[in-house]
Amino acid sequence: MKKVTIMDIAKEVNVSKTTVSMVLNNKPINVSDETRKKILKAASEMNYIPNTVARSLSTNRTNTIGIILPDIENPFFAMMAKTIEDTAEKLNYNIILCNSYNNTDKEEKYVKLLISKLVDGVIFAAGGNSERNLNILKSNKVPFVLVDRYVESINEYSGVFSKNIEGIKQGIEYLYKLNHRNIAFVGGNAKVKVAKLRNESYIETSKSLGLYNENLMIESDFSIEGGIKATEELLSVSKNIDAIFYSSDVMALGGMKYLIRNGYKIPEDISILGFDNINMSALFEPELTTIAQPIYKLGETACELLIKIIENKCENEIIELDTQLIERGSVINLK
Amino acid sequence: MKKVTIMDIAKEVNVSKTTVSMVLNNKPINVSDETRKKILKAASEMNYIPNTVARSLSTNRTNTIGIILPDIENPFFAMMAKTIEDTAEKLNYNIILCNSYNNTDKEEKYVKLLISKLVDGVIFAAGGNSERNLNILKSNKVPFVLVDRYVESINEYSGVFSKNIEGIKQGIEYLYKLNHRNIAFVGGNAKVKVAKLRNESYIETSKSLGLYNENLMIESDFSIEGGIKATEELLSVSKNIDAIFYSSDVMALGGMKYLIRNGYKIPEDISILGFDNINMSALFEPELTTIAQPIYKLGETACELLIKIIENKCENEIIELDTQLIERGSVINLK
Repeated sequence: MKKVTIMDIAKEVNVSKTTVSMVLNNKPINVSDETRKKILKAASEMNYIPNTVARSLSTNRTNTIGIILPDIENPFFAMMAKTIEDTAEKLNYNIILCNSYNNTDKEEKYVKLLISKLVDGVIFAAGGNSERNLNILKSNKVPFVLVDRYVESINEYSGVFSKNIEGIKQGIEYLYKLNHRNIAFVGGNAKVKVAKLRNESYIETSKSLGLYNENLMIESDFSIEGGIKATEELLSVSKNIDAIFYSSDVMALGGMKYLIRNGYKIPEDISILGFDNINMSALFEPELTTIAQPIYKLGETACELLIKIIENKCENEIIELDTQLIERGSVINLK
Repeated sequence: MKKVTIMDIAKEVNVSKTTVSMVLNNKPINVSDETRKKILKAASEMNYIPNTVARSLSTNRTNTIGIILPDIENPFFAMMAKTIEDTAEKLNYNIILCNSYNNTDKEEKYVKLLISKLVDGVIFAAGGNSERNLNILKSNKVPFVLVDRYVESINEYSGVFSKNIEGIKQGIEYLYKLNHRNIAFVGGNAKVKVAKLRNESYIETSKSLGLYNENLMIESDFSIEGGIKATEELLSVSKNIDAIFYSSDVMALGGMKYLIRNGYKIPEDISILGFDNINMSALFEPELTTIAQPIYKLGETACELLIKIIENKCENEIIELDTQLIERGSVINLK
């Protein structure tokens, strides 16, 4: 590859390389207006673009941020990546995208790649027990901000999360207020800390309301198939379920698919509540009532926080954002 | 930011910087096995990662590819970006992600950014009349491959596309075979060339089958709302529609939403056919029958082609991939 260089412009205009460089960088140089104009015109016509890589080496800054996330095809992370990219662009940074597929070995490879490229920082949605990978960043003094997914030693790091515990409480209390008493809960795999927090919040809240029934709680994958499987299992355990609260929207969509296919009417026969508010949750009929995570805000806040840390404008910080009930068509008032 | 350097290792092991460099780069040097081991151990323990930016300047290669696409939140492009990233990673490249939002000014900004970062090449899903931006890449001798979206002077460039014309023909003929005669068509905005090709193919195929009715053809946006609006309009024009063929799945999903909300049964009252096969097309009930674009294959092929061009293993090339009918639950046989 041979991009247009200062030398090409110098040849075109028939002046020295230094003259071109001084003019293009707006440095003081004794040159006629005519020559100056010629140089600027040639640079524009030849589509000259300065090479910022050389400068990166001397400044140790690339204005590039890495994002490591489980899977860009998951709409939750696509929405987040989109806002991170938008926010970064406004603040004059660009992003390198890495999909870990929840595989910490792949994550390690990406962490090393990003360091070797001298990224200024990393936004990290951990794919598992990612402590070792965070340590590699730390040893190399690359700032990072965790988002959505917790890690064990989170208190040593910066991170941006939803208020998962409060969000689940909000959901159960909403169903309770609408006179649901037999509330099933589909949790995520408790090995993932964010799933564990949600599951514990369900148990605590439903106990405090006198509703807890361990047969109505089930763990599954945060996926369509996970939602289908869990729903099938719940219905085999009890025929007396008022509502199912899924701890992620994709699970809820899977559950609705299973229920509709098996002749259930939503919400008349069974109410459905989701968690996340991914954009496709309003796509189908009935539209999904859900506890919204502020997905765009999570991405935006994580990006802003990271750039503040990179630019030495703040220290490590943990930010927790509120969830919000979005009432649509999948929950009915039982009285 | 101060990443771990060769100097840090040299200090730790108490040898010269040169010794460390020679050992880590596996160059011949007269050094004891013990010292060699110490150096490798220190490098590993200190999480030393070589800086590849300096090397990029001398080789003029960054092993980085830019992707410019309209919107990562659109599942079609999320699926494509994911495969591009996977394919690039296998071939030892990484990707910088840029969302143009179909705005050619934003595209220009990104093109310049990518050139300034010395990317080895660009995968480009054009957001509009992008000729000027492609010229900037061309002037700077940055190879690029177009994907999905055509541009006027496509014959001068490399590109990977679906067989859009054949795909639409395939859809109409399928509906015809199942005895549909009043077939409505929801096309995209004909200013976008890929939409224009599909619209023209509908007209030609339906004319050749003696089905063409200009009142049953409508242009709209490739979006949920576009599908809803077009469906409402079609139903106000004719009560006698057997099937609606939407030229994108998101439109079809919007149409299904509108129909179900208004009490239509799919496919009993009206059959629905989509185009694309985005992953959420099988999510709801009934599952969408659609003409599949090979979305993953488009991304993979574009990435492989670009890397071949970067590595001087091939010339410009246009590759067209077959579409495929995916029969699910939204089309009924009328006889």
